[in-house]
Amino acid sequence: MSRVLRVLFFIILVLPVTVLAQQVLAQELPSWNDGARRQAIVDFVKRVTTEGGPDYVAQAERIAVFDNDGTLWSEQPFYFQLGFIIDRVKALAPEHPEWQQKEPFRSILAGDLAAIADSGQKGLVELGMVTHAGMTTEAFETIVTNWFATARHPKTGRLYDEMTFVPMVELLEYLRANGFKTYIVSGGGIEFMRPMTEGAYGVPPEQVVGSSIVTEYKEVDGKPMLERLPKIDFIDDGPGKPVGINTFIGRRPIFAAGNSDGDYEMLRWVTSGSRPSLGIIVHHTDAVREYAYDRKSHFGRLDKALDEAGERGWQVVDMKADWKKIYPFDP
Amino acid sequence: MSRVLRVLFFIILVLPVTVLAQQVLAQELPSWNDGARRQAIVDFVKRVTTEGGPDYVAQAERIAVFDNDGTLWSEQPFYFQLGFIIDRVKALAPEHPEWQQKEPFRSILAGDLAAIADSGQKGLVELGMVTHAGMTTEAFETIVTNWFATARHPKTGRLYDEMTFVPMVELLEYLRANGFKTYIVSGGGIEFMRPMTEGAYGVPPEQVVGSSIVTEYKEVDGKPMLERLPKIDFIDDGPGKPVGINTFIGRRPIFAAGNSDGDYEMLRWVTSGSRPSLGIIVHHTDAVREYAYDRKSHFGRLDKALDEAGERGWQVVDMKADWKKIYPFDP
Repeated sequence: MSRVLRVLFFIILVLPVTVLAQQVLAQELPSWNDGARRQAIVDFVKRVTTEGGPDYVAQAERIAVFDNDGTLWSEQPFYFQLGFIIDRVKALAPEHPEWQQKEPFRSILAGDLAAIADSGQKGLVELGMVTHAGMTTEAFETIVTNWFATARHPKTGRLYDEMTFVPMVELLEYLRANGFKTYIVSGGGIEFMRPMTEGAYGVPPEQVVGSSIVTEYKEVDGKPMLERLPKIDFIDDGPGKPVGINTFIGRRPIFAAGNSDGDYEMLRWVTSGSRPSLGIIVHHTDAVREYAYDRKSHFGRLDKALDEAGERGWQVVDMKADWKKIYPFDP
Repeated sequence: MSRVLRVLFFIILVLPVTVLAQQVLAQELPSWNDGARRQAIVDFVKRVTTEGGPDYVAQAERIAVFDNDGTLWSEQPFYFQLGFIIDRVKALAPEHPEWQQKEPFRSILAGDLAAIADSGQKGLVELGMVTHAGMTTEAFETIVTNWFATARHPKTGRLYDEMTFVPMVELLEYLRANGFKTYIVSGGGIEFMRPMTEGAYGVPPEQVVGSSIVTEYKEVDGKPMLERLPKIDFIDDGPGKPVGINTFIGRRPIFAAGNSDGDYEMLRWVTSGSRPSLGIIVHHTDAVREYAYDRKSHFGRLDKALDEAGERGWQVVDMKADWKKIYPFDP
């Protein structure tokens, strides 16, 4: 080829294709910086959606599971559901004068968060029961919906469901645009999350897996209802996550995103099937725009899963380096 | 108008529209005879899908739930899962010589179905545990899949998953074509049903709700697995059905189909919401083409739900009168 022809060839054919490819790439995951993590995601999606390719996965089998706390929204200075519990204890306190003297209620009413954390699992379960049980499912949904509409995060002053991670919401949308069915699989209460997941993440209630208390069918004045009882039904955390996935979904997902050791078994389960798979860990590294924590955090402790990420091929997302934007309200 | 014009008007405008309407109607639910039940279904679907109409229901809220045994496939002379249990006990018997003397195993090996029925819930649970637990979820799926591929119904000699009801499969398809998400909500084992529901009904595993035993996450030789334990987790029958619906789906469906008193609470729950809803009962009235039974049957007893159907506005489908065809292999 003559030099002129080569230049023409470049201008007419190569340049537009390159520009087009960059534009398409730019449209996908726009809040992710170019880099290894973004590339790993895009490559994986391309592999499993390329018909006739060696790693093609039929659309029905493209299940993606996402942890919620610390993966799709923040979890500091406490799990947001604990914020709900604190607010509910305060709201119910006038009906329970005995709480002024009784732990862990006394600490909550005194605003002593460290003491609440020290009350241990028994204390937290007791708090969960008095605030989550003793009403119908519909009444609880109303309570939660009202809380999301009014309660404010102690640091940002934002509504809790505004504190979602833009890059992760883009990732959910990107996967769905590529034929994935996206699920939330969280240690959080299933009925606590359902009122917010569709609006915040585009995930409908039937694609939310979470911890639950026992509900009971009743007829009251000839009207059927479901009453929430103060008894734990299922804890969707740690080894409970693969169990919850199997119960609710019945297929092994090919994509999982988490951020803590509570997601370790889910990541293991998802990335040890016979098909191509991708595991993602959101690493909280941005003390300025969000929070920086891992191995020593009370909430969202990330230790073992971080140690094994390299060996397991899990992609560790560095929030500070990999994300252009964190919250929707960021500039 | 002159007579000629009127005739022309009829031929050019009215006749084609009428024929077209009948054709559209005929394409929908072709194995249903014209009549009150078919009309009630078509009318309901029209009401909830007419945008701007008073009874319009947004697509995301169009959830339909179907019982399985006796509603989507036969359940005589025993629940098909009991057929699976009988075959598994026979297959495992050489490893368990003690079963020759021990009830309820002895009765199964002797082919004494009446004695099995008499062994009561304790006997049936014991049979369920030895045949459904003690292996991984994946091993169990293989066992079930192989059974469906080979086991034959004692009366028809057909594979069990051929004994589905064509009109009900059409109903599932018709609802999905109108934006409904279709679920199975059955007392049957969730992991027993999942291998067959997609092929037989077009219902994917993640839209199957059923009874379950406890599963446990384990690592064996560094490989994650889920083991099935001999412990009941959830019974998705009677009052358990609204509970299962709430846990798995998290919205109240607007359509329910069942066939026995085990579906009573599900029908009540679905048809007592604030939105338009439809409840269907499949009444087994065809002793020639299928089976005829209701109030006195061991399997699929229909008594209370039949008594209240009129008062509750539930449509009772008369299989003999309403269905042109029952099984796919019918002439």
